[in-house]
Amino acid sequence: MKRILSGIQPSGKLHIGNYFGMMKPMISSMENAELYAFIVDLHALTSVHDRQKLAAGTLEAAADFLAIGLDPTKCIFWVQSEVPEVCELAWVLSTVTSMGLLERCHSYKDKTAKGIAASHGLFAYPVLMAADILLYQAEIVPVGKDQKQHIEVARDIAISFNSTFGETFVLPEAAISESMAIIPGLDGQKMSKSYGNTIPLFLEDKELRKRVMAVQTDCTPVEEPKDPDKCNLYALLKLFASPEKMAEVRSLYLNGGAAYGYLKQDLFELIRDYYAEARERKKELMVNQDYLRQVLRQGTNKARAKATVTLDLVRDRAGLKY
Amino acid sequence: MKRILSGIQPSGKLHIGNYFGMMKPMISSMENAELYAFIVDLHALTSVHDRQKLAAGTLEAAADFLAIGLDPTKCIFWVQSEVPEVCELAWVLSTVTSMGLLERCHSYKDKTAKGIAASHGLFAYPVLMAADILLYQAEIVPVGKDQKQHIEVARDIAISFNSTFGETFVLPEAAISESMAIIPGLDGQKMSKSYGNTIPLFLEDKELRKRVMAVQTDCTPVEEPKDPDKCNLYALLKLFASPEKMAEVRSLYLNGGAAYGYLKQDLFELIRDYYAEARERKKELMVNQDYLRQVLRQGTNKARAKATVTLDLVRDRAGLKY
Repeated sequence: MKRILSGIQPSGKLHIGNYFGMMKPMISSMENAELYAFIVDLHALTSVHDRQKLAAGTLEAAADFLAIGLDPTKCIFWVQSEVPEVCELAWVLSTVTSMGLLERCHSYKDKTAKGIAASHGLFAYPVLMAADILLYQAEIVPVGKDQKQHIEVARDIAISFNSTFGETFVLPEAAISESMAIIPGLDGQKMSKSYGNTIPLFLEDKELRKRVMAVQTDCTPVEEPKDPDKCNLYALLKLFASPEKMAEVRSLYLNGGAAYGYLKQDLFELIRDYYAEARERKKELMVNQDYLRQVLRQGTNKARAKATVTLDLVRDRAGLKY
Repeated sequence: MKRILSGIQPSGKLHIGNYFGMMKPMISSMENAELYAFIVDLHALTSVHDRQKLAAGTLEAAADFLAIGLDPTKCIFWVQSEVPEVCELAWVLSTVTSMGLLERCHSYKDKTAKGIAASHGLFAYPVLMAADILLYQAEIVPVGKDQKQHIEVARDIAISFNSTFGETFVLPEAAISESMAIIPGLDGQKMSKSYGNTIPLFLEDKELRKRVMAVQTDCTPVEEPKDPDKCNLYALLKLFASPEKMAEVRSLYLNGGAAYGYLKQDLFELIRDYYAEARERKKELMVNQDYLRQVLRQGTNKARAKATVTLDLVRDRAGLKY
């Protein structure tokens, strides 16, 4: 079984793009891999300086993932900052990380260009990410395309440590999720919080219906044929409808008779039903925060058991054991 | 009582310049301050990538300081890497540290100019140093002039954290040691390992005598008057001789009759006797490494008791407690 590591941002509302791009594959990987899933509160500190928002976001992220089916008995699920070994490892790794390697990272430039403060934490982000990956000797790290470079940096840092201090780390590999890109938002662009075109998970019916009705479509009259493969409403329907239903819809597109209003109503109902159970479970979890904390603490214990083994080896190799 | 914090490099032979500039003041501060003294093995990783050298250097530094009179019952004495809270704090601080602040640090530029690898650890050195200082809420940090900027950086980082998350840290102050500069080496320049002009502590007699005989003097004949205040042999004698002896020597300089060879023999004997007891104690300590480890571990426990209080507060302020 491969060890897979996935970081979860504790920042706000998850949407359908996140679900199909990241959450669903994560849930299914529980069955055939050793899954390490953790909420990256330390990384979030590079963009969130709001105590309540971060703490609440951490708990909500835990509830979100448990609600959609993350099973803490089938994976290791914890909060990043509760395993302090990751910060120790990050420091040691930073001494074998060339400045050039970090200076070449797009993400820092992109984020500062977008107005996020150019803090040292933002610059050092890839080193902490490398520590996350290497501490658990993760083999596979599923990421979006924008994070691919960070996995390469983690690999380079692992190689640098291994060649300086002797073979210690498994070299991680990125598993690039292409599916994120093909989930369109309301406007047909990639669904993304930064475009404001998302359909959040777990909306109440009224809000959800409003969102779905805002899916943009063209002005072709109902009776005329339409190209289903160029329609984002069709792409969204495909995520939720049964193959039989989709065959029917496809025929309406190709032969005329596809009424966007009715199809949107269908999409609304499909999404509502798809997440109905998870939405209820999330509500229950959010009023049972002690249970959430307990789950996360148990995960922390399991994560630390692995982390301390790696860090002990690293301390020995680096000469920190006297 | 003020809290004073002093870092000790685990890298090799201490010399007379270190003794009068740093060690002696540290020992005397035990009596009228709350002294936090620690061996900076994590910082040393920015220049030492040699497991045995670092581990041996850590133990030897402990022996050196205990030998010259550091009393672990009158201070807190530990090894930096054994208090993992410092790495956790360093990460949190890095998220309130602007890149500009670090880019302005001379030390990074100076060290890379001297050929030390431009690693991220070297660049981030001042952030870890700030974490050292702020974790223990140190008020006074005695440093050489070259480290003054790093204390200013620690202050700036503390101010930034306090203004972002609320009053948390005491603002530290540098206590600049001027005495280092006036201790001349064999050649009359400031005594420094990098100039190769040192008289190491704890040399065996033969080696010590050879070093002292290499103190450079001018060619004025014995019988002619000489300016004592321009003579590094005189400056070195002054550190070890009694006032009575120095009055006598001064008169010989001013009136003629100061024979450098005899004075060097005097200096050799004075240094030998001055460190005789400490040298023996160091020998004993070096063969009793379990005792050294025990002392350091007890210090670690005391340091962590303080560190965890600060870190707990920081985690709460930053939103890492959910």
